[in-house]
Order: sequence, then structure tokens, then C-alpha cells
Amino acid sequence: MEKTTKRKTSSQKRSIKAGMSPGTPVFIGEKRLDKVRIDVLDYSDTAVAHRLDVPADRVLLPLPGKGVSWISVKGVHDAGPITALGKIFGIHLLTLEDIVNTAQRPKIEEYAGYVFIALKTIHYNEGEKTLEMEHISLVFGDNFVISFQEGEGDMFGKIWERVLAAKGRLRSMHADYLAYALMDAVVDQYFQVVERIGDRIEEIDERLLVDPKPTDAAEIHRIKRDILHLRRTIWPLREEVGDLGKSVSVLVGAETKVFLRDLYDHTIQVMDILETFRDILGGMHDTYLTAVSNKMNETIKFLTVISTFFIPLTFLVGVYGMNFDYMPELRWHWGYLMIWGVMAAVVFIMVWFFKRKKWL
Amino acid sequence: MEKTTKRKTSSQKRSIKAGMSPGTPVFIGEKRLDKVRIDVLDYSDTAVAHRLDVPADRVLLPLPGKGVSWISVKGVHDAGPITALGKIFGIHLLTLEDIVNTAQRPKIEEYAGYVFIALKTIHYNEGEKTLEMEHISLVFGDNFVISFQEGEGDMFGKIWERVLAAKGRLRSMHADYLAYALMDAVVDQYFQVVERIGDRIEEIDERLLVDPKPTDAAEIHRIKRDILHLRRTIWPLREEVGDLGKSVSVLVGAETKVFLRDLYDHTIQVMDILETFRDILGGMHDTYLTAVSNKMNETIKFLTVISTFFIPLTFLVGVYGMNFDYMPELRWHWGYLMIWGVMAAVVFIMVWFFKRKKWL
Amino acid sequence: MEKTTKRKTSSQKRSIKAGMSPGTPVFIGEKRLDKVRIDVLDYSDTAVAHRLDVPADRVLLPLPGKGVSWISVKGVHDAGPITALGKIFGIHLLTLEDIVNTAQRPKIEEYAGYVFIALKTIHYNEGEKTLEMEHISLVFGDNFVISFQEGEGDMFGKIWERVLAAKGRLRSMHADYLAYALMDAVVDQYFQVVERIGDRIEEIDERLLVDPKPTDAAEIHRIKRDILHLRRTIWPLREEVGDLGKSVSVLVGAETKVFLRDLYDHTIQVMDILETFRDILGGMHDTYLTAVSNKMNETIKFLTVISTFFIPLTFLVGVYGMNFDYMPELRWHWGYLMIWGVMAAVVFIMVWFFKRKKWL
Amino acid sequence: MEKTTKRKTSSQKRSIKAGMSPGTPVFIGEKRLDKVRIDVLDYSDTAVAHRLDVPADRVLLPLPGKGVSWISVKGVHDAGPITALGKIFGIHLLTLEDIVNTAQRPKIEEYAGYVFIALKTIHYNEGEKTLEMEHISLVFGDNFVISFQEGEGDMFGKIWERVLAAKGRLRSMHADYLAYALMDAVVDQYFQVVERIGDRIEEIDERLLVDPKPTDAAEIHRIKRDILHLRRTIWPLREEVGDLGKSVSVLVGAETKVFLRDLYDHTIQVMDILETFRDILGGMHDTYLTAVSNKMNETIKFLTVISTFFIPLTFLVGVYGMNFDYMPELRWHWGYLMIWGVMAAVVFIMVWFFKRKKWL
Amino acid sequence: MEKTTKRKTSSQKRSIKAGMSPGTPVFIGEKRLDKVRIDVLDYSDTAVAHRLDVPADRVLLPLPGKGVSWISVKGVHDAGPITALGKIFGIHLLTLEDIVNTAQRPKIEEYAGYVFIALKTIHYNEGEKTLEMEHISLVFGDNFVISFQEGEGDMFGKIWERVLAAKGRLRSMHADYLAYALMDAVVDQYFQVVERIGDRIEEIDERLLVDPKPTDAAEIHRIKRDILHLRRTIWPLREEVGDLGKSVSVLVGAETKVFLRDLYDHTIQVMDILETFRDILGGMHDTYLTAVSNKMNETIKFLTVISTFFIPLTFLVGVYGMNFDYMPELRWHWGYLMIWGVMAAVVFIMVWFFKRKKWL
Repeated sequence: MEKTTKRKTSSQKRSIKAGMSPGTPVFIGEKRLDKVRIDVLDYSDTAVAHRLDVPADRVLLPLPGKGVSWISVKGVHDAGPITALGKIFGIHLLTLEDIVNTAQRPKIEEYAGYVFIALKTIHYNEGEKTLEMEHISLVFGDNFVISFQEGEGDMFGKIWERVLAAKGRLRSMHADYLAYALMDAVVDQYFQVVERIGDRIEEIDERLLVDPKPTDAAEIHRIKRDILHLRRTIWPLREEVGDLGKSVSVLVGAETKVFLRDLYDHTIQVMDILETFRDILGGMHDTYLTAVSNKMNETIKFLTVISTFFIPLTFLVGVYGMNFDYMPELRWHWGYLMIWGVMAAVVFIMVWFFKRKKWL
Repeated sequence: MEKTTKRKTSSQKRSIKAGMSPGTPVFIGEKRLDKVRIDVLDYSDTAVAHRLDVPADRVLLPLPGKGVSWISVKGVHDAGPITALGKIFGIHLLTLEDIVNTAQRPKIEEYAGYVFIALKTIHYNEGEKTLEMEHISLVFGDNFVISFQEGEGDMFGKIWERVLAAKGRLRSMHADYLAYALMDAVVDQYFQVVERIGDRIEEIDERLLVDPKPTDAAEIHRIKRDILHLRRTIWPLREEVGDLGKSVSVLVGAETKVFLRDLYDHTIQVMDILETFRDILGGMHDTYLTAVSNKMNETIKFLTVISTFFIPLTFLVGVYGMNFDYMPELRWHWGYLMIWGVMAAVVFIMVWFFKRKKWL
Repeated sequence: MEKTTKRKTSSQKRSIKAGMSPGTPVFIGEKRLDKVRIDVLDYSDTAVAHRLDVPADRVLLPLPGKGVSWISVKGVHDAGPITALGKIFGIHLLTLEDIVNTAQRPKIEEYAGYVFIALKTIHYNEGEKTLEMEHISLVFGDNFVISFQEGEGDMFGKIWERVLAAKGRLRSMHADYLAYALMDAVVDQYFQVVERIGDRIEEIDERLLVDPKPTDAAEIHRIKRDILHLRRTIWPLREEVGDLGKSVSVLVGAETKVFLRDLYDHTIQVMDILETFRDILGGMHDTYLTAVSNKMNETIKFLTVISTFFIPLTFLVGVYGMNFDYMPELRWHWGYLMIWGVMAAVVFIMVWFFKRKKWL
Repeated sequence: MEKTTKRKTSSQKRSIKAGMSPGTPVFIGEKRLDKVRIDVLDYSDTAVAHRLDVPADRVLLPLPGKGVSWISVKGVHDAGPITALGKIFGIHLLTLEDIVNTAQRPKIEEYAGYVFIALKTIHYNEGEKTLEMEHISLVFGDNFVISFQEGEGDMFGKIWERVLAAKGRLRSMHADYLAYALMDAVVDQYFQVVERIGDRIEEIDERLLVDPKPTDAAEIHRIKRDILHLRRTIWPLREEVGDLGKSVSVLVGAETKVFLRDLYDHTIQVMDILETFRDILGGMHDTYLTAVSNKMNETIKFLTVISTFFIPLTFLVGVYGMNFDYMPELRWHWGYLMIWGVMAAVVFIMVWFFKRKKWL
Repeated sequence: MEKTTKRKTSSQKRSIKAGMSPGTPVFIGEKRLDKVRIDVLDYSDTAVAHRLDVPADRVLLPLPGKGVSWISVKGVHDAGPITALGKIFGIHLLTLEDIVNTAQRPKIEEYAGYVFIALKTIHYNEGEKTLEMEHISLVFGDNFVISFQEGEGDMFGKIWERVLAAKGRLRSMHADYLAYALMDAVVDQYFQVVERIGDRIEEIDERLLVDPKPTDAAEIHRIKRDILHLRRTIWPLREEVGDLGKSVSVLVGAETKVFLRDLYDHTIQVMDILETFRDILGGMHDTYLTAVSNKMNETIKFLTVISTFFIPLTFLVGVYGMNFDYMPELRWHWGYLMIWGVMAAVVFIMVWFFKRKKWL
């Protein structure tokens, strides 16, 4: 699980592979499960059956007629079962390497016989206020879809149940539509994360108007960083989904392409909102700096005014604190009263001057 | 109705759909009407008739000869009538989803049998100083145009009346020209909004020269945000109108394409003005900061000068406030006068020095 | 006449058209002449004649052989004569609309039978230090060029005389070359404006080094805004001239295309200089801010040093101003002298310390 | 060896060539070895043999059947052996010039008979905290790969051993795959460098929150500069690898192209991480400035409060230090106590006022 | 000679032409020579001869067999000889205009019968620390190269001598290779200029760490401006050389194209270094501002601490300077000592407090 606060994870793990021969599937990431668990859902227009916790070498069953097998793999830390699946479905070694490399960036690649899709689910951890990402891989061919996920997360559970319950279009369509549906579920999650970020922005925005605090600046920077990560995660997906929608592969049907175009539209919309957030955050940072500077200016102006009132008065009282033998004013009976009068006049003049200068 | 101050609306509502099967028309937005209301205007070169408040299943009438039906739908919160219309005109489920999703960004999509256009009307609310957007969808085919709008706004009223009154080119042209005319009415509204923003910028600009205030900085930021929203709304439209003008679809006639090119020109002009506004606002923010900083500097310089005048004087009077038994100056008859002379000299030298330094 | 200080003009006037049917020629701008005036210059390789103040319906004369008619129209506020010309030369309604819309941005459009060119002359008003723009339209066909201008400006006078005097290539070439020559005259004017801006930049630059003033910052912003306007005016022209030079239209001859390539080169050169100016102005703004901040710092440092000299001295004289009964130093004969010695030592130490810190 | 702190090296050395005829192989760089050393590894599917320290003119051996020769050249400061190799393998003079020019930027060029690859290894020097680059050239043809490196670095040692030990795919593939494997080793090294930079960023980031120091700002700038250098080094490689993967050259096999696509992916990933770092560093610089400014503000506010407390008090005690003959308060028995009471009241009022203003 | 400090030159001179017919060769620039001087170098594989100070109408000599004539023209202020040459070699009027217009930006244009190349030599004037540019034009055809330069500069002298001495490839190649060699000489000069700029950057960078001065900021801005000019000069050349390397013109041989590709590479490398310099300078400006602000902060903090130490002490001594009749402390025998003790305690507490706050 890659958190935004642990930025280096992705690159650090990658260097384990330095010196190894390319195409070696080596797990890169944090182990989240004890055991790799494989569930299979076989369905066709007319029949559906699911088998839980199937060994990797028994995922294929002789199916009557034209059906689709959805093989759900939870846990990618163990190269064994994944290599076994790779052999059964003819998956290239480089693809296997990308499946177990949780630092792999989103991409879609068409190979002979299958299409490989790497993407990330994003979850907003309310407690730690961090984004948590999980690496998801999809491999789909003519009549199978294999979904790989790092942990036990149930983001595809609703789709699994929908197939079992025979709701929606899913049962009557090909493997490409199932792959689309899984990607759609992931992109729908992006909207939830983007919403939470929108809420955080709004909270700070309201606070900023009342009382800007250094923690707000830090929070703005933290959200900026989150948006940075989101953009880098969603941007390549956007491009790749667009390409898949225009693919000439026989594995992607014309009907599914219409839906991929829609999915492309959704990823653009997420990017659009993120761009808007970024611009708004930029403006908020400026607002914060201006607000802080205004407060500071007010404080300094107050000092200026107070000091400037007392400086000449202190000088005046200092004058009559001198011990010269011959200082006629000191002898006058009304001297003391007079000095208070002079000081009052000085204050009066300064008040008038400051008012005119709009400093009061 | 999406206001700029309620930024998150668009993404928040979107997440309602998470887990649903794609292509399900679910209303996303704020309900603005109690009832969906459908009016129909049937016209041809020679005849015209309008029917008000027509049930969704009776919008189609056997028309004599080649005519155009304009079906105006007000209110998109109820999926019922919209699904009914979708069935009558063969509209794809994904299109229906986009019609009722008021968070949908502007786009133009060509389907078999019809062209779908999503766009936004923008209205400047003088009272709250906010931009209000309304989601508009147009679907036009060979002999029909369906316009969907969220509320009861009458932005298309003039065109309705022009068709009824047989003024202009409208009656003799096809459905594509009507669709163009509706889009043109929306883009003309953008010019009005852009004008109002231009006025607000000018107001602040004049104030800034006289007396910069923190509220001006806030206002500048608010306008920047409005322009951000406008750009994001108009930008995709610009591109899509350009594409439609070059479309190979049989639904878009050569004559209408000349007008679409003109419309494209107008959207570019709006974008152009917005870009100029953005650059001007950037400069104004700099001007504001410079003006505030100049005022601050003036205040601080004043303090510097006042303090620096009095600090040596206060020291001098302090000297002769000391109580040493043997201080010859205190005994001199002209000592007190002399100290005033010395202080006058100090002030004189400082005035000369400050003048030379251009601090006075 | 659109001045840069009246930014909104272009958008404000545009909204007059809201609700009107597209393709209606409505004058948008400021009326500059009482009456539309049309002059005609008929010329061929061998003959030349000019007719002044010709009514719109009599501009066409049966010409012997292959000649070119240059119809110069001054004043576009009256749709009457322009519509009349439109009918004679078969000009599209949208083109007429663009001719009378002085807010129209530069563009070149090829129609069947003619090419339409919209551009702006720019004039630097020395008195008000503003840029003044005038909307120019050119329509040229096989054997005619119509030039439309807002006012009585004589920017094409030299070309008119050159044709009359049979100087240069003009007489022997087609209408496309005349159109090129008119555009070339407009672009040559841009160089003059750009020069004036270069002078203003140089003036400020020299002042900045000596004594930065707030008015300089304002001037820098004003020039930035002017450059912004120039760029937005010249940029679309550049692109369009490039396109015309590669046009496949029969109206643009191969020989003229070589000259259009040269004109394209000139517009690029203007843009280039403007870009350089923009970068230089950005640097100048930084220089201004740094210079102001340096001055401010010098002032504050001066205060620091003065205050820091006097603060301990003032404390010292305060000590011996106390009235304790038992203060042995006060009784010493050399006490007063000693205190001056101590103060001299304090000053000496501080001077040494400040020198070491490079604050003096 | 080019270090980032010695920026000019690359351009300075380049000027040695001014006035020389192009295509003259002149060593540009810092000599790192005494002698050019050439090792050769001949291998085929079935046999393998290596010869160490071979003279340049004896690198080619009559090989039985289809084999690959890897000629490893260490040291490029001596044009002699390199020109000799150039003659044997038919390498263009411009390529030889690029091999000995250690300032050459990464590129891939296809010539008749061979492909030329120039790239840089990057090593992070922990001691001096600098990036050290080494210029690597690869020339591969149908059955040979020549690797040129500046020094004795052993970055290709593991691959050499893998071929000798017959591990991995290498022995059974062509020269193009060996060239790919060498490039892959270089790119893997980039990940290690990027990791180290990630660590440095994290260290500073943690420090920044606790206590921002000027050295942190300097460190941020230094890392920014390193990233700048890395980007400029990796960016051209990325593009060129992408092109090679789509090359139509007969020298690059279809199988190797799949691996080149993977390598392209890795270079994109490195660029991606660098981009993220750059954005993060930009944010950190802002954080630093904000943190420093907050600390400064706190200090100034403290001064304001302290000064403002004492200024009126000092004035008050000054008043009763005056020597007027007639000052009734001085005669009062409780006068001294009263003045303490007044001062306490002043302090109390100020504390209340400052609390209300949130300055305390 | 255009210096960077005389920015406007290029545009100012250009306006001389306003109103003239296009294609008139009018000298635009500063006259640098009294007389136009033409030297001719006729060479072939087997023979070579040079004629000095040849009249324009006698440059062509009946050459035995296939040879190349290099016509070197020094001075372009006199349109006479240039027009004469134009007639002899069939050069277009627009080309002649570009040759004498020293403000012309770099470009390469292919005409029927010849290729025209405009470029700039750049020289760093050590005394005035300015960049000096000279306008160079090359026209090459099947068997001739004409080089035009503004002044007497000898940047092509080495090539002239190499041809005479029969060194290098030059004698055996066509006119296109000579043109390439001349361009290569100009680009090699760019590396020298770039080096000098690199040195200046390094000098300032080292100073900045020790002691930032306002002159450094000015120097940074000056270098930025120089880089701006260099980029604008080299950028168009880069593009044009790339195009020429892919040209289909019969005048550019395949062999020369390989060298042009190399030249293209060199221009990219210069641009690359300039980009890096620009980024480094941006960072240096930030460093400068941070360093200045740090110094300022240190000064202000020092004032804060000094003031804050003395303000309460001055208050205390003021208290015992009051003249109340009844102030018991004044009568105590140890009163004076006690006040020193109190003040020591105050100082002690403040030192402790400031230490804890890390202000000392």
C-alpha cells in the first residue's frame, strides 16, 4: 500500500531489480496478505457458477459453449501462482513483471491473445488524512478476465454479485465488457476521493476568511501534493483508455468501445476537477499570504502609531528632567500644567495628522 | 443550478452512481421544477403549429411532407419522460445518462441517427455576484431537435417566437440549423456574462489606483475563480463546435457548417477576452501588492524618520538629567539655552542628511 | 476606435446582437464619420483612372480588357452601402457582418469567388500614451479589391499614389498583389508601434537604475498590457497569413505567395520582438521590486544602527539620573568625565562590532 | 567525469574544436585512464570465450557459425585504438567524434550497418553529495556490440558474467538484445540515483517542519539543480529509446522491440518520479519561505508587545522625573504608590486589549 | 553591429522601409566599412586560385571543368554591388532585401537555383560585457557560394586557408559542403560565447554564497537578457538546419546531409546548455533574494534582542529617577546596589528566555 507521505516507496523498491535479467517477476511492494487467494466466476448468458479458493493450476474448467471466466487473484507477493497463471493463459514475462511490481504506473498494452491493464485504486484514509493506493492489474482475452489486486479490498464485490444475480448487461456480454466494468468501478472511486478533497478545500477556504493560520498553509500544501499524486495516477490512464477505445484489436468489441468512450469522458472529468482544484489552491495560497501580511501590517502599524505618540512626549518630559541651574520654566508656577498642555497639543496634532493620513 | 461558490456539487453528486451499472439514467443535480414539461413546435417551410404540455409518448405527429419538430423539455429530474423520449427517437442509454447528469461537461457526440450536444448556459446573478450555470442538452436528427433544460429559463423563447412568426432563415432550413441557432443563443449569452466581468474588473482597477483595500484583493481572486469556471465551461465547447463544423455526418448540412464556423469564431473570441481578462487580473494583483507594499513602506519610513529625530535628542536631555555632583555645564548660566541650540543643530544636520538621502 | 484603456468595448458592443438572427450586418463600434465615402481606382497594365465619392451602386464600370478595381470604403457605420456592395460582388452575409463588426478579431477566410481579410491598424497616440486600433477589412476577388476602414485615416494613401504614378510592381500584377500590398502597409505600421514601445521600455530601464519610483511600476504594467493587446491582435494574423501563403485558391497567384511568405516572416519578426519585450519587462518588474526592497533595507538598517547606538547610551545616562541617596559614582569628581569615557568606549566597541558584521 | 558542480565543463571543452574540420575524433573530457583497454567476449548459443586486453586490430576472430562479439573498450582519451576499431567495423567519422566527445548528449542514430547509442551512467557520490556522470557509447551491428566507457567502472560486469555463466536469455539472442541489456543496466542505475534523491528530499522535509534553516534552502536548490541535470540527461534517451522500439532497421529484431518498449516504460517512470520531485521541491521552497516568515513575524510581534508595554510606562516615570518646582503629586505621601498603581492599570488594560486582538 | 544593450535597433531601423514597395534592397543597420570588398576563391579537386578585391561584375570566370567559386563579400551597406551579384546569380529581390537587412532573423529558404541562409555570428565583448552580433548571409547554388558579412571580421579565415592549403575534405566536395562548413564555423563560435556566459554564472554563484550584493542581482538580470537574445538567435537556426538536413533540393547532397544532421545536433546542444543556464539563473535569483532576506532578518533580530534587553532596564532606571518626596527605596543604603541586582536578574531571565526561544 503506497501512501502519499511515503513518496519514495515506489522508486526505492524498484532498485531491488538492478542487475537482474529483465522479465523476472519479482514482487515490489509491501506484503499485505499471507496467502495468494484465487476465486473463479464462470458465467455465460444462461449459466453462472463460482468456485472459491481455487489452486492456480485448476482455474480452467472445460466450459460448455461460449462462456467467460473471471479469475480474481488477491495478493501478488508470491510469484508462484502468478507464474502458473501466466503459463496457462500465455502471458508474456514482461507482463508478469508488471503485475507483481506494485510501483508500475497505469498503462494498457495489447499483446497477442490478451490485453493488459495496470491501474490504481485510490482510497482516502480519513484517520491519517492520506491517500492510499492499491495496484490493480487486469488481463483479459477472448473468454477470460484475470484481476490481480494487492490486498483483500472488496472494490469489485458489487460487480461479482451483479454477475451472480444476473443483473445488468454483464451476463450477455463478452470478456471485454467485464474488463470495462471493473475499470469503471475503479474510476467511480476516483470521484469519491475527489469529493473528499473538495470538502477539505472548502473547509480551509472558510477558515481562511476568518483567521489564517500557519497550519492552513501546511494543509494547502498537503492537498496540493495529494492532487499531484492523483494527477500522475489518473493522467496516464486517461490516455490509455482513449487509445483502447480506438483499438483495432479483435478483443475489444464495437459495443464496448462506446462504453470505453464514456469511461474516457469520466477520466477527463476527474482530471478537469483536479485542474480546477489546483488553480483554486494556488489562489488560496495567495489569499493566505495576503491575509497573513495584512495582519502583520496591522500589528506593525499599531506599533508605529503608539511609538510615534510617545516618542515626542518622552522627549519633552526628558527636557524638564534636566538639572540645569538656570531653567526658567521649572520655576514658573504653571510650568507643570503648561507642559501637560503642550503634550496634549502634540497628541492632538498627531491625531489630526494620522487621521488625515488614514493611519487611524 | 451550479454556483461557483458551491464548487464541489458536480463531483459530489457524481458519486451517487458508484456501484451502479453504467448507462443508467440517474438525475444528478438540484431539482428545479415539480414536473417535467414538454412543448412541441412543428414547422415546415409553409406551415407552423405549436402544442404545449404534451405527454412524452405523444410528441410525434404524422407530419405532412418534410417538416421539423422542435421538442422542448423543461426539467430533467424525472427519468421517466426522458427514457420514453429516448425510446421514441432511438437515443443510446449513455446519452440519456448524460442528459440527466447536470454535472456533465460540454461535449458533442455523433451517434447513428442523431447528434448529441451538451452545453451550459451561464447567468450572472447581480445580487449574490455569482455565476449560475444551467445544463442544456440538445439532440438533433434528420427532422427533429430535442432541447433539454434544467429549469424554466426562457433563453430559447426568442427563437421559438421567431419560428412562429416566420422571421429569419429558420423556417426554410433543416433541423441542424435550428440546433445551431439554439447553440448561438447560448454563446451570445456568454458575451453578456463576459461584459459584466469586464465591468467589475474596471471598477476595481479604478479603485486600486486611488486606495488599495484587502477587499479588492479578495474581489480579484473571486473574479479569477469565475473566469476559471467560464474557461473550463467554454473551452471544450469551442473544440467540439470546431469538430462539428468539419463533421462528415449527413445530419450536418454544408450551409449550416458555414454558420458553425462563425459560431466557432465567436467561442474563440469569448476565450480570447477571458484570456485577456486573466492576464489583466494577474497584473492587477501585482499592482495591488505593490500599492500595499508602497503604503506600508511610507508608514515605516515615517516611523524611521520620527524615531531617528528624537533618539539623539532624548539621549542629550538624558545626559543633563544625570545627578553627578560635578557637571560644569549645569552650572553655566546659558547652559539650558545652549542645549536647545545643540539640539537645534542636531535636528538641522539630520534634516540636511535626510534630504540628501531623499528620505524627506 | 478601440483604445487599450477601454478594454470592454469589444465585448460590450457585441451583446447588442443577442437575440438577433445570425448574419445580420449590425454596426458594432464607435461612429467615426458622418457619411460612408467610396473612392474607386481602376487600373490595368496600360491605363489608370480614379473616381472619387462614388455611390455604392455605381462602383462597377465596364472596363476595357483585364483590369483591377480598388474600391476604397471609408466608414462602416452605415449598413446600407455595404449591403449594396455585398450584393454586387456576391459577398456572404456572415462576411458583411464581420466587416461592420469592429470588434471582429483578425482572420482570413476563403469563400467561393473572394477572399475575406480582417485585420487591425495600430497607432500609438503620443498624447494619451495609448494604442488606438482601427478595424480594416479587405475583400479581394479575381479583378477587384475592396478595402473597408472605420475612419478617414490615410494609411493606404501612399499605395494609392504609387498605383496612380505607375511606380513599382503594382500596376502589372493582379488583385491578390494589391491585397498583399495593403496588408504589408498595415504590418509595416506595426513596426513603428513596436519601436515606440521599445523607446518607452528603454526610458524606464534607465530611470530604474538611478531611482525606482512607483510610477515606473505602473508604467511597466501599462506597457505589459499594451503588449498583451498587440500580441492578441497580431497573433491570429500571423497564422492566417501563413495559411494564405499555402492556399490552393485560384485567387492567390504563385508570385504573390512568395511575397506572402515574406509578409509572414515580418509578422513573426514583430511577434518575436514583442516576446523579447515581454521577457524584458518581466525582468524589469523584478529589478524594480529588488531596487525598492534594497532602498527599504538600507533605510531600516540605518534605523537599526542609529537606535542600537543610542539605546545603551540612553540607559547609561538614565542610571545616573536616578535619585538614590547612596550612589558613590555621583560623588566622584571625575564621575561625569568617566561616564563620557564609558559611553565613548561603548560607541567604539559598537563601531568595531558593526564594522566586523559589515553593517557599516 | 562531469560533476554537476562543474557545469561549464561540457561547453568549455567543446570549444577546443573551433576551427577544426568536422568529423575529427578529438577527445573532449577528463582523462581517467592511462591506457585504453579492450576486452572481447565471443559467444554463441553453444560456445563462449573471452579474451582480455586485446589489441584494437585483433578484436575480430574468425568465428565458427553465427555468434556475437562483445568488444568492451575502457578509456576513450586515445583516438588511436578507436579509429582502428572504426575502420574495422565501418563506423562513420561523425560517430567516432561522438564517441570520444564525452560532452555529447544522449542520442541513438541508425547508420548503414550499425546503430549508435550515446548515453550517460549516473552515480551519486555520497561524500561530495554530487552527481557524477560517465559517457557511454554503444555501437551494435549484426553480430557485434562495442561498448565504450570513459573509466574502469564495472557497471556492465554482471552482464559479462551472466553471458559467461550462460544464465538468462542473453546467449540465445542477437547483438541487439545484448545492446538492450546494457542500456537496461544503465537505466536501472538511474533508479538508484533517484532513490537517493528521494531520501535527501525526505530528510529535509522532516527538518523543515521542526526548524527551517538557511542551509535547507540551499540544499533544496542543490537538489533542484541535480534534478535539472538528470532530466536533461534522461529526457533525450527516453525519446530515442521510444524511436528505436519503432525502428524499421533490420538490426533490431521484433523480440527485442518488446523489451525496448519495456525500457521506454522505465525511462518514463524515472522522468515521472523526477517531475514529482520537482513539484514537491517547489512546494518545499514555499513551505520554507512561509516557515521563515512565520518565525520572523513571531519575533517582530514579541518586540511589538514588549515595546508597547514599556513605552507608556517609561513616559510615565519620565513625567515624575521632571524638576518643576510646583508638581503637587510629588509631594503627596502616596504619590509613589499611586504611580505604581497607575502603571499596573496601564499594563492591565494593555493585556486585555492585546488578548482581545489575539496578539498574546 | 547590434548589441544587446541597444535592443530597439532592429525594430527601429526596420521602419525606414514603411511605405516603400516590398522587395527593395535597402540597407538596414550600422555602416561598418567604407567600401564593399569582394574576394573570390575558385577551387576544384585539382586546382585552387584566389583573386582579391574583385569588382562585382567580374566575379565569374570561365572555369575549366567542375569547380566551386566562393565569393566572399565584406560590407552590405551599399546596395550596388549586391544588386549586381543578384543579377549575375539570379537571386530574388526579396533575398537581396534580406541580405542587406541586418535585422533579419535567421532563416533558410530554398529558391529555384539557390539556397539562402541568414544567420548571426555572436561575439562576446569582454570590455563592455555585451554580446555583439553580426548578420551573415550565405547563398549557395550548384557551383558557387556567396558569403555576405557586415564588417571585416575574419571568422571564415581559417576555412579560406584550409581550402587554399588543400587540407580536409573541402576541396573534393561540392558547394553545399562549403556552405555547411561556414555554418559550422558560426555554430562553433556559439560554444565559445556560451562558455564565457558559463564562467560569468560561476563567478556570481561563488560570490552569492559568501556575500550577496545588489550588483549581483543586476548581473544575473543582465545575463538572463543575454541568454534571451542568444536563444532567439539560435532557436530559428536550429529548426531551419533540421529542415535543410531533410530537404529534397538537388542542391543539398546526401553526404552533406549527414553533416547537417551533426550540425543540427550541435545547435540542439547549445540550446540545451542555454536552457540549463536559464534554469540555474532562475534558482540563483531565488538564492539571492533568500540570502538578502536572511541577512536582513539577522539584522532585525539583533535589533530586537538589543532593544528588548534595554527597554525594561531603561524603564527601571527611569523609575528611580522620579522625584517623589516619599520613595523609600531611594533612602535605603543598599538601594543602588539592589537596583543593579534587579537589572542583572532581568538580564539573566531574558537571556534564559531568548536562549530557550533560540533567538540567541
